[in-house]
Amino acid sequence: MVAVSLPLPDQVRIVEVGPRDGLQNEAAKLPTHDKIRLLQALVRAGLKEVEITSFTHPRWIPNLADAEEVARAAADLPVQAFALVPNRRGLERAIKAGVAGITLVMSASDGHNRANLNRSRGESLSELIDLQREAAAEGLTCRISLSVVFGCPFEGVVPADEVTAIVRAFADNGAARIGLCDTIGVADPAQVHRLSRLLRGLFPQVEFELHLHDTHGRALANTLAGMQAGIVSFDTSVGGLGGCPYAPGATGNVSTELTAAMLARMDIATGIDVAMLAEARMILAQGLGKRFDPSIERAA
Amino acid sequence: MVAVSLPLPDQVRIVEVGPRDGLQNEAAKLPTHDKIRLLQALVRAGLKEVEITSFTHPRWIPNLADAEEVARAAADLPVQAFALVPNRRGLERAIKAGVAGITLVMSASDGHNRANLNRSRGESLSELIDLQREAAAEGLTCRISLSVVFGCPFEGVVPADEVTAIVRAFADNGAARIGLCDTIGVADPAQVHRLSRLLRGLFPQVEFELHLHDTHGRALANTLAGMQAGIVSFDTSVGGLGGCPYAPGATGNVSTELTAAMLARMDIATGIDVAMLAEARMILAQGLGKRFDPSIERAA
Repeated sequence: MVAVSLPLPDQVRIVEVGPRDGLQNEAAKLPTHDKIRLLQALVRAGLKEVEITSFTHPRWIPNLADAEEVARAAADLPVQAFALVPNRRGLERAIKAGVAGITLVMSASDGHNRANLNRSRGESLSELIDLQREAAAEGLTCRISLSVVFGCPFEGVVPADEVTAIVRAFADNGAARIGLCDTIGVADPAQVHRLSRLLRGLFPQVEFELHLHDTHGRALANTLAGMQAGIVSFDTSVGGLGGCPYAPGATGNVSTELTAAMLARMDIATGIDVAMLAEARMILAQGLGKRFDPSIERAA
Repeated sequence: MVAVSLPLPDQVRIVEVGPRDGLQNEAAKLPTHDKIRLLQALVRAGLKEVEITSFTHPRWIPNLADAEEVARAAADLPVQAFALVPNRRGLERAIKAGVAGITLVMSASDGHNRANLNRSRGESLSELIDLQREAAAEGLTCRISLSVVFGCPFEGVVPADEVTAIVRAFADNGAARIGLCDTIGVADPAQVHRLSRLLRGLFPQVEFELHLHDTHGRALANTLAGMQAGIVSFDTSVGGLGGCPYAPGATGNVSTELTAAMLARMDIATGIDVAMLAEARMILAQGLGKRFDPSIERAA
């Protein structure tokens, strides 16, 4: 009789990114006091790590122009908060606002890095390595976030050795957590498993995290494949928030609800009470007129 | 360096069930000539096996009251056609209409079997085993389809030994293909893997197939887990057709498009040209006013 089971962890960390990656992509701006209520609701539902905002220039992301206020409110909550930081100016603002953690971001492909950050990968890399060092000196927890690792809208598949070279540069300079982001949702499970195994083998001192989008409905399959490769940290977004405002109906980040529900059914602990996330969705529904996929509404 | 990859097959069989499981659940009835155009479009897109209709009494499924006409049209197409058969009267109609294959259906739980088929599991089992024998004598290809194997709306989890007992009864009487159906979409990957491995180990002479619904967004993760347990046959539905008409927005069968696209990206052959399925969706859009999930529309 065959009874071998899938190799799955007992416990997984969920990093809620809705307040940052979700809200920055919404057409409407959520009022600051609703953002703070959202964070409170997320904490009540059991989230322990949340990406709360971004210190990108408000010209580029007007929805998150209230980053300082949100960061100060988050400091009072029992949560590990992260704020996205794209450059030195962002780091200065983050430190001044008293945020406890930062996410430094660049792209695995040169084309996406130029389109998004207006500089070459090499320029981003050397700036971010400096910022990583300074953040550590300030006592901040730091995550590195690599966009389009599994596929780039401009360059297609990004060669594994280019990803590896970027990871090595961060790892050699002390990176403890590096996120592999499927920014456009094209990854497949075999690819997720292959790259995750490769990088974990090469850099055992680094904790790799997955940031998956559900553009092609594969995010939960990719989550499963990631866990089988030993990944135990996943970025998710309440309500699946984060669809591009220019592509109506486009799914964005994989939802916290569907992820946590799948994990719970497999007895993989996340600390999240899925039913309690309804409160966070209600704040988004009222503040943004947001409607959610029925599968998310009935998740439990 | 770690480079072990997920254990995946080179090739998978997709059984398209949209014309049966999809259309029977739509609020509107697709005209017969559109059903035939749909079958033709599916064949052009590369589908080799299709569940084309159901010989259930038209009182219960008025949408498929034209089963005879559809079956006769399918006989002219280069496709292995199956028709659902719930009882002896259905088998008689199927044989008379000249269909080449049948799917015999019952539920793994007694409660669902009584609600759906108005008899006990034991009664269904003995009738279907007779029908299986008669179908074989008539030279029909036969699939057994077991509903709610992974969870029942009335009884919750169905014990594995009850599923095993039903499978054994069919297997002992010559069943070659048995479908494990996640009728309400509650299965999780660990469960799919566990039950699939168990049954394949116990009944190596049977080919097990998976019939997954995407109610909780886990269908592709469950597909992945099934393949890792050695399953290489999956029921899918064009456009994800098959949502319950009484639950607006409810997702139904896992879509042929998203399944085939995921498999293609992993170099698992299905013979399906995903882009060509747009023609089948257009027939459904025009005939039923059906709209599809954006992720399905952009699948390629």
